[in-house]
Amino acid sequence: MAIQVAVCGPRDCTVKDARNAQEIGRLLAERDAVVICGGYTGVMAAVAAGARSAGGTVVGILSRPDREHANPDLSIVIPTGAGEARNNIIVNSGDAVIVIGGSWGTLSELALAMRHGRAPVVQLGGWRLLDQHGDPVPGVRHATSPEHALELTGLWL
Amino acid sequence: MAIQVAVCGPRDCTVKDARNAQEIGRLLAERDAVVICGGYTGVMAAVAAGARSAGGTVVGILSRPDREHANPDLSIVIPTGAGEARNNIIVNSGDAVIVIGGSWGTLSELALAMRHGRAPVVQLGGWRLLDQHGDPVPGVRHATSPEHALELTGLWL
Amino acid sequence: MAIQVAVCGPRDCTVKDARNAQEIGRLLAERDAVVICGGYTGVMAAVAAGARSAGGTVVGILSRPDREHANPDLSIVIPTGAGEARNNIIVNSGDAVIVIGGSWGTLSELALAMRHGRAPVVQLGGWRLLDQHGDPVPGVRHATSPEHALELTGLWL
Amino acid sequence: MAIQVAVCGPRDCTVKDARNAQEIGRLLAERDAVVICGGYTGVMAAVAAGARSAGGTVVGILSRPDREHANPDLSIVIPTGAGEARNNIIVNSGDAVIVIGGSWGTLSELALAMRHGRAPVVQLGGWRLLDQHGDPVPGVRHATSPEHALELTGLWL
Repeated sequence: MAIQVAVCGPRDCTVKDARNAQEIGRLLAERDAVVICGGYTGVMAAVAAGARSAGGTVVGILSRPDREHANPDLSIVIPTGAGEARNNIIVNSGDAVIVIGGSWGTLSELALAMRHGRAPVVQLGGWRLLDQHGDPVPGVRHATSPEHALELTGLWL
Repeated sequence: MAIQVAVCGPRDCTVKDARNAQEIGRLLAERDAVVICGGYTGVMAAVAAGARSAGGTVVGILSRPDREHANPDLSIVIPTGAGEARNNIIVNSGDAVIVIGGSWGTLSELALAMRHGRAPVVQLGGWRLLDQHGDPVPGVRHATSPEHALELTGLWL
Repeated sequence: MAIQVAVCGPRDCTVKDARNAQEIGRLLAERDAVVICGGYTGVMAAVAAGARSAGGTVVGILSRPDREHANPDLSIVIPTGAGEARNNIIVNSGDAVIVIGGSWGTLSELALAMRHGRAPVVQLGGWRLLDQHGDPVPGVRHATSPEHALELTGLWL
Repeated sequence: MAIQVAVCGPRDCTVKDARNAQEIGRLLAERDAVVICGGYTGVMAAVAAGARSAGGTVVGILSRPDREHANPDLSIVIPTGAGEARNNIIVNSGDAVIVIGGSWGTLSELALAMRHGRAPVVQLGGWRLLDQHGDPVPGVRHATSPEHALELTGLWL
């Protein structure tokens, strides 16, 4: 079975986030990893486009019960009908989880992935967390580039 | 995007159900359809084995949040952590739904697929439904063989 | 903690089903049982109205993520946003499950309740199931009246 | 229908978080609000105990499909079987959401509540969020005491 990497990020993302997502999609496909994403627009569409440009496989885990608004670069579509609960399914499906950029939905995916605790979680850009004492909350691995993000997953050591 | 066919059936299935499931898996793979199944044992394992024997792609939508007990013939694993709610996700993911054999879990998938109403539902073996007046409940297409089941999906006319 | 009884049935129900549901709601409220239902129209609205008429508590487990279309007789509203997966939550929440009338959604609830296996399942009206040999599938308790349905739950022996 | 307030927080909480949760439970019950919580230990148990001490109603939305480990102060138990996806259901069910203390699970609830966007979200203690530029992410209302938390919900103006 191929390695599966969940890639999460906002619908309304920055140009830089989209570029990072596309590059990460391409790099994952080159390593024969299956990309798991939310299947809609923004970071989800960019990572799918990047992976498909390199012949990769992309699974879209949709919130809707049908294929409406799914992006055109998905290889496999899973219309969960589970609403935002599908975020859980996305992060459960990754041997690693890469989070690009910041939004409330994206933060929920990062938090669920850390809560789940079964896969390394890598963040590229986006929001930062401070604990009650003003110190950074530990656990998430912070990458400075797409290549660095893949390296920090620890999947290709 | 490839055609996706959901195949449902009991964990504890009859030898005949398993044989039918394996044959349907093989036939779907030969037609380049992606098989969506529950990813565990019984009919789920048989359809996966059949599809893989013909080089097909099999997606296992698991009830657990991890890969424990997943069968070895899955190409892609989606550990939903959603419990029996994953039955909904399986049937939503099919351009057609094929139900093999009878059990309460299998019946829930057949019922959810009919409720969903977006894809043809084909049954091979298993239980029958009578309405309040003792008449057969219409809607499900009853097949007499694996080949007939594929034909009744209407996907390859 | 009060006894909780899940009551399931079609949106588009018969007059008789609605009358049965209303009576069951009333009888449950008189026994201080909390009614768990799907929160919308048809059997769901009738059981809620019956329970409220006798001062009972009714919990509506909605498929939508908001309160739109919820019926006015709910005491507590749980907008799951889980789509049809909410059927699972309804049946899991009952110390007993009473199913009134027939529809695909209702059948999915009956099947999920039997699959769950933790609570008695009582059916009043609706569809019948035959196995591969044409024999009735055992397990569901068939009631002939609202009073009989409560009796068959075994909760008030 | 009564006002419903979702109260979220860690299983493993600080003594201060537990005290805050208990007080918030009590204050909500005094205002006849229904408390929605996760139904297990830590903040969930403390808010339930506080509400019950004042004669309030507490709904526990459990991750498990059964009542195992549910705390004893719940009035109504909803065993979703949905795993961590139940966090979504908790926050969808509140006319306001109050988050006490910090953990990954708690952060997922805060993020899902903000993503949902239908109810005010109030935080008492716990983690802080900075955006890409190091500025606080706006939207969450920060309380300094249980009374202040209720005030910030805006439900009793």
